[in-house]
Amino acid sequence: MKIGMLTGGGDCPGLNAVIRAIVRKGVFTYEDEFVGFLEGWRGLIENLSMPLDLEAVAGILPRGGTILRTSRTNPAKRPDGIDRCLDTLEKNGVQALIAIGGDDTLSVAQKLHERGTRVVGIPKTIDNDLGGTDYTFGFDTACNIVCEALDRVHTTAEAHNRVMVVEVMGRDAGWIALYSGIAGGADVILIPERPFDVDKVADSIRERHERGLYFSIIVVAEGAKFSSEGGQGSPVLSDMGKDEFGHVKLGGIANILAREIEKRTGFETRAVVLGHIQRGGSPSAFDRVLATRYGLGAIDMVHRGEFGSMAALRANKIVSIPLVDAITRNRAVDDEMIQVADGLFARTADREAAGR
Amino acid sequence: MKIGMLTGGGDCPGLNAVIRAIVRKGVFTYEDEFVGFLEGWRGLIENLSMPLDLEAVAGILPRGGTILRTSRTNPAKRPDGIDRCLDTLEKNGVQALIAIGGDDTLSVAQKLHERGTRVVGIPKTIDNDLGGTDYTFGFDTACNIVCEALDRVHTTAEAHNRVMVVEVMGRDAGWIALYSGIAGGADVILIPERPFDVDKVADSIRERHERGLYFSIIVVAEGAKFSSEGGQGSPVLSDMGKDEFGHVKLGGIANILAREIEKRTGFETRAVVLGHIQRGGSPSAFDRVLATRYGLGAIDMVHRGEFGSMAALRANKIVSIPLVDAITRNRAVDDEMIQVADGLFARTADREAAGR
Amino acid sequence: MKIGMLTGGGDCPGLNAVIRAIVRKGVFTYEDEFVGFLEGWRGLIENLSMPLDLEAVAGILPRGGTILRTSRTNPAKRPDGIDRCLDTLEKNGVQALIAIGGDDTLSVAQKLHERGTRVVGIPKTIDNDLGGTDYTFGFDTACNIVCEALDRVHTTAEAHNRVMVVEVMGRDAGWIALYSGIAGGADVILIPERPFDVDKVADSIRERHERGLYFSIIVVAEGAKFSSEGGQGSPVLSDMGKDEFGHVKLGGIANILAREIEKRTGFETRAVVLGHIQRGGSPSAFDRVLATRYGLGAIDMVHRGEFGSMAALRANKIVSIPLVDAITRNRAVDDEMIQVADGLFARTADREAAGR
Amino acid sequence: MKIGMLTGGGDCPGLNAVIRAIVRKGVFTYEDEFVGFLEGWRGLIENLSMPLDLEAVAGILPRGGTILRTSRTNPAKRPDGIDRCLDTLEKNGVQALIAIGGDDTLSVAQKLHERGTRVVGIPKTIDNDLGGTDYTFGFDTACNIVCEALDRVHTTAEAHNRVMVVEVMGRDAGWIALYSGIAGGADVILIPERPFDVDKVADSIRERHERGLYFSIIVVAEGAKFSSEGGQGSPVLSDMGKDEFGHVKLGGIANILAREIEKRTGFETRAVVLGHIQRGGSPSAFDRVLATRYGLGAIDMVHRGEFGSMAALRANKIVSIPLVDAITRNRAVDDEMIQVADGLFARTADREAAGR
Repeated sequence: MKIGMLTGGGDCPGLNAVIRAIVRKGVFTYEDEFVGFLEGWRGLIENLSMPLDLEAVAGILPRGGTILRTSRTNPAKRPDGIDRCLDTLEKNGVQALIAIGGDDTLSVAQKLHERGTRVVGIPKTIDNDLGGTDYTFGFDTACNIVCEALDRVHTTAEAHNRVMVVEVMGRDAGWIALYSGIAGGADVILIPERPFDVDKVADSIRERHERGLYFSIIVVAEGAKFSSEGGQGSPVLSDMGKDEFGHVKLGGIANILAREIEKRTGFETRAVVLGHIQRGGSPSAFDRVLATRYGLGAIDMVHRGEFGSMAALRANKIVSIPLVDAITRNRAVDDEMIQVADGLFARTADREAAGR
Repeated sequence: MKIGMLTGGGDCPGLNAVIRAIVRKGVFTYEDEFVGFLEGWRGLIENLSMPLDLEAVAGILPRGGTILRTSRTNPAKRPDGIDRCLDTLEKNGVQALIAIGGDDTLSVAQKLHERGTRVVGIPKTIDNDLGGTDYTFGFDTACNIVCEALDRVHTTAEAHNRVMVVEVMGRDAGWIALYSGIAGGADVILIPERPFDVDKVADSIRERHERGLYFSIIVVAEGAKFSSEGGQGSPVLSDMGKDEFGHVKLGGIANILAREIEKRTGFETRAVVLGHIQRGGSPSAFDRVLATRYGLGAIDMVHRGEFGSMAALRANKIVSIPLVDAITRNRAVDDEMIQVADGLFARTADREAAGR
Repeated sequence: MKIGMLTGGGDCPGLNAVIRAIVRKGVFTYEDEFVGFLEGWRGLIENLSMPLDLEAVAGILPRGGTILRTSRTNPAKRPDGIDRCLDTLEKNGVQALIAIGGDDTLSVAQKLHERGTRVVGIPKTIDNDLGGTDYTFGFDTACNIVCEALDRVHTTAEAHNRVMVVEVMGRDAGWIALYSGIAGGADVILIPERPFDVDKVADSIRERHERGLYFSIIVVAEGAKFSSEGGQGSPVLSDMGKDEFGHVKLGGIANILAREIEKRTGFETRAVVLGHIQRGGSPSAFDRVLATRYGLGAIDMVHRGEFGSMAALRANKIVSIPLVDAITRNRAVDDEMIQVADGLFARTADREAAGR
Repeated sequence: MKIGMLTGGGDCPGLNAVIRAIVRKGVFTYEDEFVGFLEGWRGLIENLSMPLDLEAVAGILPRGGTILRTSRTNPAKRPDGIDRCLDTLEKNGVQALIAIGGDDTLSVAQKLHERGTRVVGIPKTIDNDLGGTDYTFGFDTACNIVCEALDRVHTTAEAHNRVMVVEVMGRDAGWIALYSGIAGGADVILIPERPFDVDKVADSIRERHERGLYFSIIVVAEGAKFSSEGGQGSPVLSDMGKDEFGHVKLGGIANILAREIEKRTGFETRAVVLGHIQRGGSPSAFDRVLATRYGLGAIDMVHRGEFGSMAALRANKIVSIPLVDAITRNRAVDDEMIQVADGLFARTADREAAGR
C-alpha cells in the first residue's frame, strides 16, 4: 500500500521514533511504500514531500525533532485548503494517510476523513492533555528535563536562601507541572486547573521559613491563573499575556509571581523560565518505547482498515478509538496525582495556597 | 503511631523517594513517628536503627541508594531470626512495619505478619518482574541508563563496522532487555523467557550484513539461555555460570555470545557488560513519582489497617493486594512487548533467532 | 592549625569539591582543624559557623551548591563590618582564613589581609572572567549545560524553521557564550566585548536562509550590547535593564533581540533564557578535578605561609599570585577563541554582524 | 585546493567535530574541496571515498562516531600498502591529506610524508597519552562518563557496604583512571605507570573499614600491573591477558582484583568494567571546542604549507609540531596529578598501596 505521513504542531521528543516504527513495520511486514509530507499540513497544501524508506529512517530513533519537519498550518482555515490536500493525496497516489499531531492537526485529519480520505491519527502533545489516551510521548522526556532543572535550581536556592519560581509548559493542563514538581521536590505547584491566591502562596512560603527552611521551589505551569479573589495586591493577568506579535510573553507568570512573592515575604525570589528546552532533544527510553508502540499500532490499524480512528494508550495497551473522541476533549490532571502532591505538602495552608 | 521501616535486597533508584514520601505524609498528615532499621532485616536481627524525621529525609529525593542501607540478610534462614526481629520491634515500641524489598524481603514480611506483626510491603525490583504490580520503581531509570549506553555503543559499532553484544540485568525476566532494546534500537534482543539458538542469531546478523548494514547491536539479558537444540557449536552454559565465590561471573553470557558470533560470522564482535551502573544513581522523574506514590499508598494502608498487604500499581492506580500474591509469582514479559520488538525486526529469521 | 573557611557570591558547581579537598588534605596531611563560616561574609559578621571535619565533607564531591551556603553580603559596605569579621576570627581562634569567591569576596579578603589576617583566596566565577587565572571551576559545567540546551533547541529550530535566540550568563565577559556557542554549533554569537549591530545580525540570518538553511541559533550573553551605530530601529537598552527591585530583568536582551530579528526578517523567532539552571547541579569531571586542585593548592599555600595570595591556574599548573592582581582585573575573552568562532562562520557578514 | 581526509584507529568523541571544522573553514575561507576516505587507511588502499561538502557535515557536531568510519588497517604492514595509498591520492587529485588518528595512524601519515605526500596530522587518543600535546579530544568526554558511572556505583557501594572495583580504559597510561578517579571520589586509583601490590591495596581498604567507612571504590586502568613483589598470593597476569582471538579479555584486571581483595579482606567486592561505553556518544562541550580547534588549526597548517606536521595543544594554544615527535613518545601521567590524588588520600598506606 502507498501510505502518506505527516507531523504537525509543536516539536515533541519521539516523533522520529513514531516515523521509524511505521516505516519499519510497513516495509518489513506489509511491503508498504511511504511518502512523507513536509512541514505538517503545509506539505499537503503545497505538495512538498520526500520518500520515506528504510534508509531515510535509519539512525533517527534517538534524535529529537522530526525529519518531516512541522508547522502549525491549518488547511481548514483557508478556503481551498482541504481541497488542495485531497488533490495532493491523489497526485501522489496515496491510499492511506497517517497524521501525527495534536488536537488541531487531528481535527484536519477528521475533516479529510469526512471527505473520504482513509486516515489514521496518532496523538502528539507534550502536555499529556489529549482526551482518550493515558499517556502521550514526549511528556516523560519533558518531565525528566524539568526534573533535572529543578535539581539544579535546588542547590542554588539552598545555597542562597532563595525562593525560586520555575515556569514550565502547560497552557491548559498542569500535567508537566504536577509530575515534574512531585519528581523535583517542589514546595508549591501551581496548575491551570486550580486558580491560586498569591497571598496564600506567600503564606505557605513564610510558614516554611518559620520551620527553618529558608529556601523554596515553586513550580508554575505557564497557564496557571490567579484566582479572582486574589485581593487588591494581585496583578492583572491580562496585562502580561501577549507581546506585539501575539506570542504569549516569555516568563509572564513566573516573573510576576516572583515579584509578588518577594513583595509579600521580603525573601529574595528569582524566576526561571524553562521554555523551549523542554521539547527538544533526544527522547527518554519510556518515550521511545511509547512512540514506537503508537507507530506500530497505527500501521496495523491502516491494514485492518480502521480509518477515522486514532491509536490510543489505555491501561497500558494500544487500542483504536474514534478521532472525534480525541479532538473534542481536553484532559485535566488526575485527581489522584493532585492527592499525591497534597500528600507531600506540609500543611493545609499549602493546599489552600494552590487552590486545593 | 510509631512505625518502623526497612529496605532490603539490591540497591534500586527510588528507595529514598519512597522513604521520604512515607515520612512526610506520616508526619504531616498522621503525626506518626518513625524508626528506620538499618541494612534490611539485619537491622531487625541486631537492633540497628536510626530516627527518621523530616530532617533525616530532607534532600534525599534525587539521591540513589538508600539512607537506611540494605542487605540480603534473611532472618528466616537462621533459627532465631524471626524471633529476634519480633523482639527488636517490641523493644522499639514499633506498632507497624513497612518493608520495602523484593520477593525475598517480602517473604520475611509475610512470615512476621503470620506471627502477628502489623506489616505493609512495598515491592522493589529493578527487573520489573514482581507479580501483582504493573511497574516497579527503578526499572525506568535502568532502562534510561541502558538506552543511553546503547546510543553510545551504536556510534562505535557504526564507526567500526562491528557487532556489539550488550549484557543487561535480568536473571529471570527480560523486561530491561526488551524495553531498553526497543528504546535503543537493538537489532536482536535475547531474554530469559525465550531460549535462543546462537546459529540463528548469527544468521540474522549475516542477513543484515547482506542488506548493507555492517554493524549490529545485540542486547542480551544476563539470564538469557541457549536453547537445547543449539547445535554442536554451542557452549555449555553451566561452564560459565559461577566463580569460586558463587557469584554469577561478570559478562558470562555476553562474552560467550560475542565469541560464538565472531566464530560463526567472521565479523568483529565485542562484548559490553553494563553491570552495577544500571542500579545506582539518581532516579528518573517517572521513578521518583512512582516511588513517591508507593510510599504514600503504603502509609495510607497502615492507617487504614490493611496489614499483610502490599501496595501495587494496577492500571495506573495504587491499590492494596495481599503480600502472598506478590511473593509467589514471577512475572514474565508482556506478550505485547514481544510483539512490539517483533514488529520492528527485519525478517522472520530474526524472530526465529530470538526463539520467537 | 585552626583554619576558617567561607564561600561568597553566586552559587557555582565545584564549591563543595573545593571544601572537601581542603578539609581532607588539611586533616590527613597537616592535622588541621576547620571551622566553616556560613553564608559568606555574613557568617563572619554574625559569627555563624559549623565544624568542618571529615564527616561533614563526606559525599559532597558530586553535589552542587555549597554546604557553607553563600551570600553577597559585603562587610566593607557597613561601618563596623571589617571589625566584626576580625572579632569573629579571634573569638573562634582562627589562625588562617581561606576565602572562596569572586572579585567582590576576594576584595574583602584583601582588606582583612591588610588588617593583619592571614588570608588565602580561591577564585570563583562561573563566568571565567577573573584576572590572573586561566580557568575557574564551574565554567566547564555551565558550558556543558548550555551546550546540551543548544542541542535540544537545535532540533526544535530545525523542525519548525525557526530562529532561536538563547541567552546565557556573562554580564561583563562572553566566555560562556563563546565556548558553548562554538560547542553547540551556534550561527551567531554575541558577547559583551563586541557591541553588535542588530541589522547586521538580521542580514546574516537572511543570508543563511538564502543558502537554504531555514533555521538559525543565536547565542547571546546577558551583557551583550547593541552598538551605538545600530540605526533608528534599535531598541534603547536602558529601557530593558532593571525591574523595580533593581534586578536585571529576566530575558531582557533575548526577548528584545528576538523581536527585532523577527521584525527585520519576517522569520519566526523565539527566545530562550537559560538563567539559573546554568549555575546549579552536579559539577562536570573537569570542574571537580579543577576545584580539587584549587583546594589542595590553597591549603598548601596556608602551610607555606603564602598569605595575601590566591591560588591560580596558569599553563595547567596551580600557582600562587597576589590577591590584588585577581581583584583588579576583569578578563575579556581570548582573541584566539574569537578567531575560532570566526573560522566556523559562513561569511564576512556574520563576523561584521557580531561586531568583529 | 583539493584535500583528502581520513579518521583511523578507535572511535573517539569529537571526530565529527574535527571533520566539520575543517570542511567549514576550508570551504568558507579557502574555497577548498574535500574528499573523505572511508574506514581509515583502508579507504586509501581500496579507493573508498565520499564527497565532503557543507551538507555532508551539517548536524554532525553533537554526534559520536565518525561519518568517515574508521579501522585499524595499517598499509605499512602489507607490501604494496603505501604504494596503493599514493596511487589513490593521485587518482583522486588530492593535493593535501589530513590524517586524524593515534600513533599508529600518524606513523603511516609520516611514511606518506616521507614519500612526498603533503600531510598534516591531527592527534586522536581517548587515553590522552600522545606525546607533544597537552590534551586530546575525547578524553574529557570519557572522564565525564566514568565520573557519572562512579557516582552511580557510589550509591550502590554505600547502600550495600561493598567494595567496588571499576575498570576503565588506559592500556599504557593512567590518565582516565587518575582524572576520573579524582573526579569520582575513588578511594584507590591504580594506573599502569605505578605497578601495585594487591596486599597493600587490601590493607588500605581494611584501614578505611576500621575508620568506619564500610564501602570503597577502586578505579583501575585496564593496563594496571601487579608489582613483582606482590607476594605469593598474587595472580599471574599473563594468565588473564588474552582470549583465543587475541583480544584483551573483558574485565581481566577488575575481576581478578575483586577476587583477590575479597579473599584478603572478607569484604563483599564486585567488579564493573565500563568498556566501550567510554568512547561512544555525544562529545562534551570541552571536547567539541577542542576538536574544533584542532580541525581549524590543521586546515590553516595546510594553507601555510606546514606539511609533515601535526596540530598540537600547548599551554592552551594550538601549535604545529613535527609528526615524528608525536609518534615516538608515549606520555605518562603528570606527576602533579599523582600528587593531587595523593593529597586526597587518607594515609601513607594508601599511597604505598598504589605503588606511590
